Amino acid sequence: MKVTVKVPATTANLGPGFDCLGLALPVYNEITVEETVMPGSGLEINILDDSNTYDILSIPKDENNLAYKAIELLYSYIGQSVSDIKITIRTNIPVTRGLGSSASVIVGGLVAANELLGRPADNNVLLSIASEVEGHPDNVTPALFGGFCLSSLEDDGSVAFSKIDWPENWKLTLIIPDYELDTLIARSVLPENISISDAAFNIRKCAMLIDAVYKKDSELLKKSLKDKLHQPYRRKLINGFSELSELLENKEGILGCVISGAGPSILVISVDDSFEKIKNDVKEIFNALNVDCDIRTFEIENQGTIVI
Amino acid sequence: MKVTVKVPATTANLGPGFDCLGLALPVYNEITVEETVMPGSGLEINILDDSNTYDILSIPKDENNLAYKAIELLYSYIGQSVSDIKITIRTNIPVTRGLGSSASVIVGGLVAANELLGRPADNNVLLSIASEVEGHPDNVTPALFGGFCLSSLEDDGSVAFSKIDWPENWKLTLIIPDYELDTLIARSVLPENISISDAAFNIRKCAMLIDAVYKKDSELLKKSLKDKLHQPYRRKLINGFSELSELLENKEGILGCVISGAGPSILVISVDDSFEKIKNDVKEIFNALNVDCDIRTFEIENQGTIVI
Repeated sequence: MKVTVKVPATTANLGPGFDCLGLALPVYNEITVEETVMPGSGLEINILDDSNTYDILSIPKDENNLAYKAIELLYSYIGQSVSDIKITIRTNIPVTRGLGSSASVIVGGLVAANELLGRPADNNVLLSIASEVEGHPDNVTPALFGGFCLSSLEDDGSVAFSKIDWPENWKLTLIIPDYELDTLIARSVLPENISISDAAFNIRKCAMLIDAVYKKDSELLKKSLKDKLHQPYRRKLINGFSELSELLENKEGILGCVISGAGPSILVISVDDSFEKIKNDVKEIFNALNVDCDIRTFEIENQGTIVI
Repeated sequence: MKVTVKVPATTANLGPGFDCLGLALPVYNEITVEETVMPGSGLEINILDDSNTYDILSIPKDENNLAYKAIELLYSYIGQSVSDIKITIRTNIPVTRGLGSSASVIVGGLVAANELLGRPADNNVLLSIASEVEGHPDNVTPALFGGFCLSSLEDDGSVAFSKIDWPENWKLTLIIPDYELDTLIARSVLPENISISDAAFNIRKCAMLIDAVYKKDSELLKKSLKDKLHQPYRRKLINGFSELSELLENKEGILGCVISGAGPSILVISVDDSFEKIKNDVKEIFNALNVDCDIRTFEIENQGTIVI
């Protein structure tokens, strides 16, 4: 018996929303979980790289694989232990680029295994396990539900989450460079403490962002897409981010650019086809810096993880 | 010629919303601004204490009066200087209790003077001046517009603001103790820096609070009314806050209790008449601590400042 699911890529943080905001993108990994026929055959993990563009060697194929870790916790939740299992990960989501590839693998493994087991876990349990494995809930929540999600890891380990309608004409452009950035390195440059005034800045900007999404108010979203918590420290790791921010300042229909997750990809949010008009200028910035990058504009993905 | 305006009390912060969230309460100060007939008579300030309950001696009656300071800035905005003016402040809002009495005086002086001058300043200018005098916009915004407001002091000195519908059945109970707490002291106990994880906590809780208000979701509001930015440091200044928080934990219909502004008043948010059922238990807590206090339940005030 086997189950295959399709899980979207995600982009997290969205400027002020450190570790709590995320949205899903229509690029998918497919994860198949299979109870192997031969008892005692143990764990088998296969990785298939559909796009052939990105390095998948960093995805572990043993007990350290994140899909496997999540599946182990799910089995443990129902009082069982995993024995013979085969996991196949067909990747289209670039790895270590800040597009939620690890979240997709975790969520995919979990949802597929949950189906195999007859759905013993509800969404709350799945989210709680996925956040535990990932360390934060902002990618796993939109990976599971699609759309624009606010999520909060609560003190009891549960995840409070909410999906809020994202305006259809707010397009998402990802600038995906050809270098990797290890999340551990991106986390290591953050200070342990920040000033109370920088914290207050992000608090009000993140509240404003939620308000802007509800109001579908582009000008308000533009004002809200600011951050003093992680971007000031990470921008030096993201080649071209400062130059791009400057170029996009006051361009019609461009609502802002933010580091996608912990980078190195950059997310630009724009109204309708506004990005198309400046795409060549953006390419020139990265060409001048000798950074090869893939620039792709998406609509938001609203379906989340589905069994296929 | 004279103009009298009526300005509501306000409660700010609302848990996670440090310096950006506030709501208006139906208790009013009346501020009259009058061009004096006799040239050269200078500045005259009168304070009338309607309630006779609270110390109004701390309100300055000279150039340091906040209404006067705000009026000076308004005159300066139109390129004039204030000469002979009489300001009368009729107070019902308790002073130095965390109920926005200073914001009401600032906003009242400004709006009355703006009327006298033929409305040279729009709401954006008024808010910007009021925030400059007050130091933060979270009280002055609801004092001006009423209701539940999100406001953000921007880097250019302007205030971005938004009024969001507050569910009618979310009642506001203020526990107003008989001692004063100087805002300067309440600010002095805050650290300069906080951990990035405490900042991230408040960011997600404040975003969740906005989401809860839009969704009119009481359970979500309850989860959101938490704070790690100012309350952990100020609770020692607020006699009874810890005991009250403990009492209210898991009481039906009680959505949370937070320090009102910088204290010492405490705001309890509850559904319908839920607070009535536990009012006596609350009184007992403060009696046992020998703290006299006034406990008053309100609906939100939605009108803001009006000329009367």
